[in-house]
Amino acid sequence: MPDMDWLTKHLASLGQIGSLAAGGISRPALSHLEAEAREYVKNLMLDCGMTVRLDAATNLFGRLGNAAKPVILTGSHIDTVPQGGRYDGALGVLAALECAREICSTDQYPFAMEVCAFAGEESSRFGLSVFGSRAYVGTLDLGKLPSYVDANGIGIQDALTELGTSIEALGRPTMEQRPSAFIELHIEQGTLLRDAGVPVGVVTAIAAPTRLHVWIEGRASHSGASMPADRRDALVAAAHVIAEIESLMKREEPWQSVATVGRIRAVPNVINVVPGEVELGIDIRGSDPGSKHRLVREIDKLIARVSARRGLSVRRQAVVNEEPVRMDERIVSLVDEAAGEAGIERTRVVSMAGHDAMQLAQFVPTGMVFVRNQSGISHNPSEHISQEDIQAGAAVLHRSLVLLLSGANI
Amino acid sequence: MPDMDWLTKHLASLGQIGSLAAGGISRPALSHLEAEAREYVKNLMLDCGMTVRLDAATNLFGRLGNAAKPVILTGSHIDTVPQGGRYDGALGVLAALECAREICSTDQYPFAMEVCAFAGEESSRFGLSVFGSRAYVGTLDLGKLPSYVDANGIGIQDALTELGTSIEALGRPTMEQRPSAFIELHIEQGTLLRDAGVPVGVVTAIAAPTRLHVWIEGRASHSGASMPADRRDALVAAAHVIAEIESLMKREEPWQSVATVGRIRAVPNVINVVPGEVELGIDIRGSDPGSKHRLVREIDKLIARVSARRGLSVRRQAVVNEEPVRMDERIVSLVDEAAGEAGIERTRVVSMAGHDAMQLAQFVPTGMVFVRNQSGISHNPSEHISQEDIQAGAAVLHRSLVLLLSGANI
Repeated sequence: MPDMDWLTKHLASLGQIGSLAAGGISRPALSHLEAEAREYVKNLMLDCGMTVRLDAATNLFGRLGNAAKPVILTGSHIDTVPQGGRYDGALGVLAALECAREICSTDQYPFAMEVCAFAGEESSRFGLSVFGSRAYVGTLDLGKLPSYVDANGIGIQDALTELGTSIEALGRPTMEQRPSAFIELHIEQGTLLRDAGVPVGVVTAIAAPTRLHVWIEGRASHSGASMPADRRDALVAAAHVIAEIESLMKREEPWQSVATVGRIRAVPNVINVVPGEVELGIDIRGSDPGSKHRLVREIDKLIARVSARRGLSVRRQAVVNEEPVRMDERIVSLVDEAAGEAGIERTRVVSMAGHDAMQLAQFVPTGMVFVRNQSGISHNPSEHISQEDIQAGAAVLHRSLVLLLSGANI
Repeated sequence: MPDMDWLTKHLASLGQIGSLAAGGISRPALSHLEAEAREYVKNLMLDCGMTVRLDAATNLFGRLGNAAKPVILTGSHIDTVPQGGRYDGALGVLAALECAREICSTDQYPFAMEVCAFAGEESSRFGLSVFGSRAYVGTLDLGKLPSYVDANGIGIQDALTELGTSIEALGRPTMEQRPSAFIELHIEQGTLLRDAGVPVGVVTAIAAPTRLHVWIEGRASHSGASMPADRRDALVAAAHVIAEIESLMKREEPWQSVATVGRIRAVPNVINVVPGEVELGIDIRGSDPGSKHRLVREIDKLIARVSARRGLSVRRQAVVNEEPVRMDERIVSLVDEAAGEAGIERTRVVSMAGHDAMQLAQFVPTGMVFVRNQSGISHNPSEHISQEDIQAGAAVLHRSLVLLLSGANI
């Protein structure tokens, strides 16, 4: 059974670092507050008898067991969004440490165990997400890195220098030994578990966005004197696109993929002129690659169809195009099995938000454990998990780690 | 037959007043340039042997015939939009004067004839349209008048003072004697005659706008984590409204009424948030009151239906709500008959743009003669009428005036 006193105490204490008088926590990516939280976690690792290591990206690792053994990695991140909650990231790191305390020694297992606290997971400071895990697996675009600057004009290079490291030091992946598996526990940032009435989610996939900018060009004309047959109204065309995108989305399984037109701009946008041009911003998220690709393809066909039928020209640009990431099926089954053994009710879920596990999954068999969020919202001080659910999540993580350390299933 | 040399010469000379090096003419409402054009027209009136009168709104009248007789009024305006063309307004005044020259004397008729040049027809300077004809018939909102200010901060009051008159002098209609009929010749500002291949249009009605501001309120949510069933997407609702408005418009006869969503604003209007609120600006123009009222009613029902079906709240405000104006049926028939007698091909048309005739029609049996616009656009230097079409229009106006002066049909 997880030591709830220990977990509760350290969640509260870690939550003090960067806490705001107005409520919530701000521990920006690559900041001194993140470093302070890392120091706090490092001391907990040392208390657990772990061997501690900091990499060039300021990712922190605590190892339990012989350096010659293959390793099972678990953990999350310790930075937050501005006015974030106390669970996002921190719970995954502390639950992993609590498991390490319980497991105590890996001498009996063929694997060693490592707990990580990845740096800079949140994109809110620099506009770059999962910095630490990208550096770990080697997926950072080093050429582009100096261009990320925060709202105060401080670049990633400056921030790294302050922390005693540099972009140059990230020239190769900081992952020295490829882990045999990675498992991340995280608060759910949506409502699936709350709506299902289940405390724990076994994540099967993490959604990734494709973002389209679409320009529809018709012809502006007088709203009184131009007759229906003569009009080339870009806004009516856009309306057909927006309405039909919802229908296309609804043909897909919920949580497999969704599509949103979040942004619209009409030109000239005055009441007595038929709009000559409309710009749309479309966000398509999919956890299932087949579903997401189909949705993107159908939206492209829809736009072409509407513009052809109405004699309008259309331009389309994909400004973001990321692939959904599937969790490793063996780890999904293993977590499911672990929850069964621990007697914890669980359901399979997808994550529509991004996580460090997305980066790890490209190189390492990876899984995630979600814990039910009472408020259903995250990136907000109101995110909340009950004591019982924390206990349930930590128990599933613990049992999963024991299975992984034992060499089961993978 | 109209004296084309005379008409051509004075159209060119009048077009010099306010002409721009870059092309086009700018003779703003209630400006010194409009006054200069009025002086030019006044001299033509005097040359025709007319009795000339200027009213408190700076409307100019030239009378042919005995002051004791009832009067047939014809004319248009002499101000222009910025970079306007040489026909809009001016042609109606000069064609009326050319007819007066031909008619020469009204001694043989039971009616006198009056040619008018209304002041400030265009709304481009002060945001108030048909100023002169409103003052003439007494439909100015005198309390609101001081609030109209041009881009240079000059108010209508200042402009009137410069012209030797005042708002106070407009306390009662400047129409001393109610004319027995009014007929206005004007360049068509749309494409109906050009598309029909007919030189002259007999106007049956002038459209009037109803303008609706509509606010649709849903709920903003995360574009990835909010599932289709949970969404209250204000933009998708707006899209259904916009698409369906086009269908509703197409059920009405073309040129009876049209509806346009010219303006749209989504909140927060960022690519990764489901829009929580959308504001629409809808312009409904109708020349047929039944058709226009039905269209407004159907649009209201549509908005209510879409918002109810989607669980969104909606607010709606009519910011403009004007009634279409029908031309007098006897005058419509008379103009039709006049064209037949003159052997001019003509068709019945509606005007989707506003004219001084809208104001007159509320008090006086009124008709309009449209002349085909080669370019199909107006309020633009490229507006153009062929010599043949000017001749045809002037011939129809001349024959109509002769019939009216003779007391036929009204």
